[in-house]
Amino acid sequence: MLKITIIGGGSSYTPEIIEGFINRHHELPVTHIDLFDIEEGRYKVETVGALAKRMIENAGVDIELNIEFDRRKALTGANYVCSQMRVGMIPARVQDELLGNKYGMIGQETNGIAGFAKAMRTIPVTLSLCKDMEEICPDAWLINFTNPSGIITETVLKHTNIKVIGLCNVPVCTQFGIEELMGTKDLQVQFAGLNHFIHAFHIWDHGKDRIGELIDKVCSGEEFALPKNLGEVTWVPEQLKHLGALPCGYHQYYYKQDDLEQKEVKSEGYVTRGEQVQEIETALFKLYEDVNLNVKPAQLEERGGAHYSEAACELINAIHNDKRTLMHVNIRNNGTISELPNDCAIEATSVITSCGPQPLNLPPITNPAIRGTLQLQKAFEELAVEAGVFGDYGAALQALTINPLVRKGTVTKEILDEMIELNAKYLTQFNNK
Amino acid sequence: MLKITIIGGGSSYTPEIIEGFINRHHELPVTHIDLFDIEEGRYKVETVGALAKRMIENAGVDIELNIEFDRRKALTGANYVCSQMRVGMIPARVQDELLGNKYGMIGQETNGIAGFAKAMRTIPVTLSLCKDMEEICPDAWLINFTNPSGIITETVLKHTNIKVIGLCNVPVCTQFGIEELMGTKDLQVQFAGLNHFIHAFHIWDHGKDRIGELIDKVCSGEEFALPKNLGEVTWVPEQLKHLGALPCGYHQYYYKQDDLEQKEVKSEGYVTRGEQVQEIETALFKLYEDVNLNVKPAQLEERGGAHYSEAACELINAIHNDKRTLMHVNIRNNGTISELPNDCAIEATSVITSCGPQPLNLPPITNPAIRGTLQLQKAFEELAVEAGVFGDYGAALQALTINPLVRKGTVTKEILDEMIELNAKYLTQFNNK
Amino acid sequence: MLKITIIGGGSSYTPEIIEGFINRHHELPVTHIDLFDIEEGRYKVETVGALAKRMIENAGVDIELNIEFDRRKALTGANYVCSQMRVGMIPARVQDELLGNKYGMIGQETNGIAGFAKAMRTIPVTLSLCKDMEEICPDAWLINFTNPSGIITETVLKHTNIKVIGLCNVPVCTQFGIEELMGTKDLQVQFAGLNHFIHAFHIWDHGKDRIGELIDKVCSGEEFALPKNLGEVTWVPEQLKHLGALPCGYHQYYYKQDDLEQKEVKSEGYVTRGEQVQEIETALFKLYEDVNLNVKPAQLEERGGAHYSEAACELINAIHNDKRTLMHVNIRNNGTISELPNDCAIEATSVITSCGPQPLNLPPITNPAIRGTLQLQKAFEELAVEAGVFGDYGAALQALTINPLVRKGTVTKEILDEMIELNAKYLTQFNNK
Amino acid sequence: MLKITIIGGGSSYTPEIIEGFINRHHELPVTHIDLFDIEEGRYKVETVGALAKRMIENAGVDIELNIEFDRRKALTGANYVCSQMRVGMIPARVQDELLGNKYGMIGQETNGIAGFAKAMRTIPVTLSLCKDMEEICPDAWLINFTNPSGIITETVLKHTNIKVIGLCNVPVCTQFGIEELMGTKDLQVQFAGLNHFIHAFHIWDHGKDRIGELIDKVCSGEEFALPKNLGEVTWVPEQLKHLGALPCGYHQYYYKQDDLEQKEVKSEGYVTRGEQVQEIETALFKLYEDVNLNVKPAQLEERGGAHYSEAACELINAIHNDKRTLMHVNIRNNGTISELPNDCAIEATSVITSCGPQPLNLPPITNPAIRGTLQLQKAFEELAVEAGVFGDYGAALQALTINPLVRKGTVTKEILDEMIELNAKYLTQFNNK
Repeated sequence: MLKITIIGGGSSYTPEIIEGFINRHHELPVTHIDLFDIEEGRYKVETVGALAKRMIENAGVDIELNIEFDRRKALTGANYVCSQMRVGMIPARVQDELLGNKYGMIGQETNGIAGFAKAMRTIPVTLSLCKDMEEICPDAWLINFTNPSGIITETVLKHTNIKVIGLCNVPVCTQFGIEELMGTKDLQVQFAGLNHFIHAFHIWDHGKDRIGELIDKVCSGEEFALPKNLGEVTWVPEQLKHLGALPCGYHQYYYKQDDLEQKEVKSEGYVTRGEQVQEIETALFKLYEDVNLNVKPAQLEERGGAHYSEAACELINAIHNDKRTLMHVNIRNNGTISELPNDCAIEATSVITSCGPQPLNLPPITNPAIRGTLQLQKAFEELAVEAGVFGDYGAALQALTINPLVRKGTVTKEILDEMIELNAKYLTQFNNK
Repeated sequence: MLKITIIGGGSSYTPEIIEGFINRHHELPVTHIDLFDIEEGRYKVETVGALAKRMIENAGVDIELNIEFDRRKALTGANYVCSQMRVGMIPARVQDELLGNKYGMIGQETNGIAGFAKAMRTIPVTLSLCKDMEEICPDAWLINFTNPSGIITETVLKHTNIKVIGLCNVPVCTQFGIEELMGTKDLQVQFAGLNHFIHAFHIWDHGKDRIGELIDKVCSGEEFALPKNLGEVTWVPEQLKHLGALPCGYHQYYYKQDDLEQKEVKSEGYVTRGEQVQEIETALFKLYEDVNLNVKPAQLEERGGAHYSEAACELINAIHNDKRTLMHVNIRNNGTISELPNDCAIEATSVITSCGPQPLNLPPITNPAIRGTLQLQKAFEELAVEAGVFGDYGAALQALTINPLVRKGTVTKEILDEMIELNAKYLTQFNNK
Repeated sequence: MLKITIIGGGSSYTPEIIEGFINRHHELPVTHIDLFDIEEGRYKVETVGALAKRMIENAGVDIELNIEFDRRKALTGANYVCSQMRVGMIPARVQDELLGNKYGMIGQETNGIAGFAKAMRTIPVTLSLCKDMEEICPDAWLINFTNPSGIITETVLKHTNIKVIGLCNVPVCTQFGIEELMGTKDLQVQFAGLNHFIHAFHIWDHGKDRIGELIDKVCSGEEFALPKNLGEVTWVPEQLKHLGALPCGYHQYYYKQDDLEQKEVKSEGYVTRGEQVQEIETALFKLYEDVNLNVKPAQLEERGGAHYSEAACELINAIHNDKRTLMHVNIRNNGTISELPNDCAIEATSVITSCGPQPLNLPPITNPAIRGTLQLQKAFEELAVEAGVFGDYGAALQALTINPLVRKGTVTKEILDEMIELNAKYLTQFNNK
Repeated sequence: MLKITIIGGGSSYTPEIIEGFINRHHELPVTHIDLFDIEEGRYKVETVGALAKRMIENAGVDIELNIEFDRRKALTGANYVCSQMRVGMIPARVQDELLGNKYGMIGQETNGIAGFAKAMRTIPVTLSLCKDMEEICPDAWLINFTNPSGIITETVLKHTNIKVIGLCNVPVCTQFGIEELMGTKDLQVQFAGLNHFIHAFHIWDHGKDRIGELIDKVCSGEEFALPKNLGEVTWVPEQLKHLGALPCGYHQYYYKQDDLEQKEVKSEGYVTRGEQVQEIETALFKLYEDVNLNVKPAQLEERGGAHYSEAACELINAIHNDKRTLMHVNIRNNGTISELPNDCAIEATSVITSCGPQPLNLPPITNPAIRGTLQLQKAFEELAVEAGVFGDYGAALQALTINPLVRKGTVTKEILDEMIELNAKYLTQFNNK
């Protein structure tokens, strides 16, 4: 018996993860999948759950799939718990992004004000989930791909006893882009940093590092595919060469903040990513309702999070079968990045064994820009975890103040206060403080 | 024989340093002072030099003062070299500030774009000065109070063999404010951080730390005097309590960036600090011309840099007489702030002995906000030193990109290019790159 | 009112500390001294106490001296508590040394088996003393010169809330030797390491380091005075030059272990240091009984611990008057020696202010021999503290096993078991384990 | 084409490595093997080379094997260079061991005086080998299993540009013992430390650490097989439980030094390991001469180094085929053991990829005994490398002085001087110093 429990089972991504388990069934014989969701998500989980059942039947694999609204029941017997929940659902995301835009800032979900707001909503639910897991399935792995993945992983590492691995599709997608550019798949791309804040430091080709070659290609303007939601990023060649490592696509928010603010905040008729996603989702669920559909629809790949659930399946497979796959995951630092605290979460290329991820060794980071921005970003994340767990207003305000995507001053407090008020229903940790 | 050489001897601050040597003559018997300046500064150095001679004569102390336009001559026999030069003089400062404002950013001299431009102009001249010192007076101490003092100190530490101490009046002035607020002068205030980026971590009162009490006072709104040029700073109490340490006045640029930008960039008729200073200076030199004036005029205290030269005199006194005074100086880190590289410059409260400054020990910095912002700021400084010494365009662009006071994106490159063009005469290190 | 409490007031060193307070009375106006001792020490404390009273009367200073057998009474109102106790008195020391010798090892009191045994006896009493201090005089400084001073200081730092400074006369005596050799007293000698395990790293002469010159002198065979009990030490010049720093006299036990074992263990008629001390003490107390004696007798200087109590007086003076004296004391590391844990005790040259000692900054230790032996010795001390506080047998055996002066193997366990049995009365922490 | 060059090809172990390549030929298609040896080793390399040819022919694999006395020719075209040389051959080893015994110390080849002497002889030849490799086959991996493997690996890492991996059979053999004791092979044993100075820190069984269970078994007296040459080791249960990790068999020299000295030095008729090996070797070569022998003779397994060459084959296989095997190898620390310098060699369990070994992450070592002894041992190794490369007499004497297996004092210098004299032919680096 091998049971997977999916928290936020009503997500539109569920068909991808189901497909992943179907495709791996010969080596990863999952016997039970529980899709858990809350009452407010009933329509979604029932719709996508029905599709999942059709997919399983169509594939002819022996997996029992249940839809479950009682979380403790769903956790019973679980070997792996995948968390893809969205507290407040998409409307909360739209609200976050509009809040950012209102104050002239980027309303991007995982960084800046919107990512912070999402963290504040998600942390209490995650702590409650882990408390249940400690009782019911203390040996299960928690595979988190709820954003902001690094902050959620650090929360679990620091404040619970649950084994956790955080996932993100950014490194996977970046690796695809690098392989395309280098014209070979036979490379070991070594990333390190924080979630949505990684660099490719080495491109190992049988013991030789081809990172310099990659940078030259990028500098000479060769096109470089990024996750769908990120668009194209261009770099000043001297600047990129000075870095000596390739920043991920999300670094555009730090390197091109002004340009993106112009585009997002000041352009008329700008539609937030949340609103776009809402529209895509509505269309997807329309498709999912079709009782004749029994495979993952191609349209799902258009979403920014593509490959996320695929990565989750492969991660479970690698642990279960001790496959020694190289994957890029969020884990406890333990000295991997010696410039960051030992006990924090980092995102780093790791070998996945039956014991979980083993991060590849990274020599000291010598470039001051990479080192300094990483240290600042981690400080923001630590403060966000503290604010989210303890409802500490000072930590929250300080977190936003040092976040490079947030404007600093009287306005910072105004944003925070408005954010707490708008999310009052979810931000119970801030009550009575 | 005890000789002091002042580089940038034509500065309007010179009367303060002269007064300092006069007042200490009984314990620090300076015999020679050479005021060196460049030909463009002839009017200023001759005017202030004449005043200095009248002050010395009036005080009846035995000091021989020379005005010198040959730097190597001025360095001959020097025991202490004080550097207070301003490459490009005040017009370059005004130009820096207007450049910042033009692009919607704070045009403040020591941080942000204007401080960076000043560093780029000052580094080549400092390296050339140290090369002369290595030949002519290799055992002399270089007391630097040319801004940005931390970046200049780090340049000397990393790229020359000269013993250097960087000075700033911000900690001294902050200490005065703290003493006033606490109602006693019998305290040991321990600062640490970077130039214009320090916190008071401890307020030692005979082995008890009263920092909590100080923070409570500041939070309850008690007035806190700052250097003349900084105005009043207010803090959100929860935020300040979370910090657990008192940021210096210059931190307002980071905590109140938006408010200051509103005030500075968007208010009509805004007059830059450089323009104000130009006006004050013109008035001061008018005073200095008066052949009846033979003491330091009170008006000099109105300038932001007051106490700077006083600190320089006291520093020289403490070294010369092994006085064990506690002073706040820029020196090599050597593990004092364990979160920063060993070989960088920091500003820290130190005991001054005959061997120079010995920084007070500082336990690890546990507040993520203080730690993270300090690490980012140091990364900026390291990149600025690299750019200034080697004329590396990539390092320069990266330095500005990670500076929290500079807007990021296409605009960053535009500012840098314009800055290099405007300062072409001084930024020789960037030629032919 | 300024009260000093001396724990182990019956020590033969008491006249030295009394003389120290008499000589400093003009600047350090001590009003009360309590000599505390246990009932078994009644003869000694009453004898030396009577001498102390005669000394005070003879000096004409206004100090009230009490002999006290109730420790809590003695602590009441204390500003400084000096601990110079000897648990088990001299017979326990002789027993320790004979135990070492029996097993073919050096029977030296502060290192090796005898120092370990003394630590095990002293730790429980120290913890109990500190518990009383926490209640009765929580703000008093504990000045410890009970051996092994480093281990006792670390115990207090890690397991109590009392402010503690550990003292030793080795650095003071070594400094005297260095000054004599260099022909000047105008030097700043910078020591760092652990108690009885320090090196002189720098000999600062107005900003120039003369350590090389000192090493050359020592290599060329110039005589170098050591504490009375240590005899003369000779070094192989190549080895000393490779070190680049001067080891203290106690290092002979590590560098000349074999020679000293030959001398001590295998020579017939060898008299242990404890037995010698017992004889000296008996003679001293004979002297002290003389009702006509009213000054410190010169014979006291013959003891190995000379200058110890003098250092204690000066330390109290420096704190009380914020004198900024450079002294060599045992304190919390806090990153001073970056190769050792932050929370351990080290011995380092420090500036003494009204807030206690501030260790001078030390760059990373690059010599592998100094670094490696220091790290091993600290590991021994940490294990000794753990064994002494918790009565952990495994920690105790491991401490002895890694101690370089102890033979390893079946014999180690035999020694430990015999030591625990011989000291059963004092080693209560090992009961029922 | 895939070429392996074996330096010290005349070793009696060669049949094992040949067998290894034969057995893996289906996945690791080695085409050329060059056995290089010096003229003095002609009999041995020709004898074992002829056997190797018969083995290859018998196995029917397509490998061309050459015997080569010109090292540069042997290196031409090499993809992997295996070093198993023995400078001075077995008589030098016997001489080393007798030298140790003469002075009452353990005469063990890789630690203490004999290991140090072997390092001094081997370092100059290794540097010369690497210089040739830098010219002739700069991309080849050097697989070193010449002892002392850690010191030789560190020499190559610090003083050449060659990619090197050091091997030892101790962790492999210890792993076999652990698997036997735990009754399963499905474990990930994680070792870390220095060559012949490792601990098993974790015994991962699908994410659960069973190290505690292993220690309990060892404490309860269950037998634990060690490499043939190490005999049985027993531990005091309290001590082993305090460690919380399992020391390797070579730790008996540190934990049981006294017992082993009794046995080795003081027992009459003691035969050194070198003499035993000489006898075994003579017998082995007798066997090898038999023209009918065409497989590896079983008697070879009786030697202490069994599995060494097997490990070398598997290591090459894992690199060549990116197998992600977990192996225990000597590599650059790079922060893996954060308590040791970044640039030193450590021995650690690593994932072998096509890019070489990636050490598994290790959290900080908290046990003071493990940490302290490791730091001391590394200091010894660093000094040995310095002495061996530069012929620095002071470094050499200091290395021996801090080595825990060497007696300290006048005797240390006598041993060193005798060692240099006895090995004058090989220790050219010490000439003219």
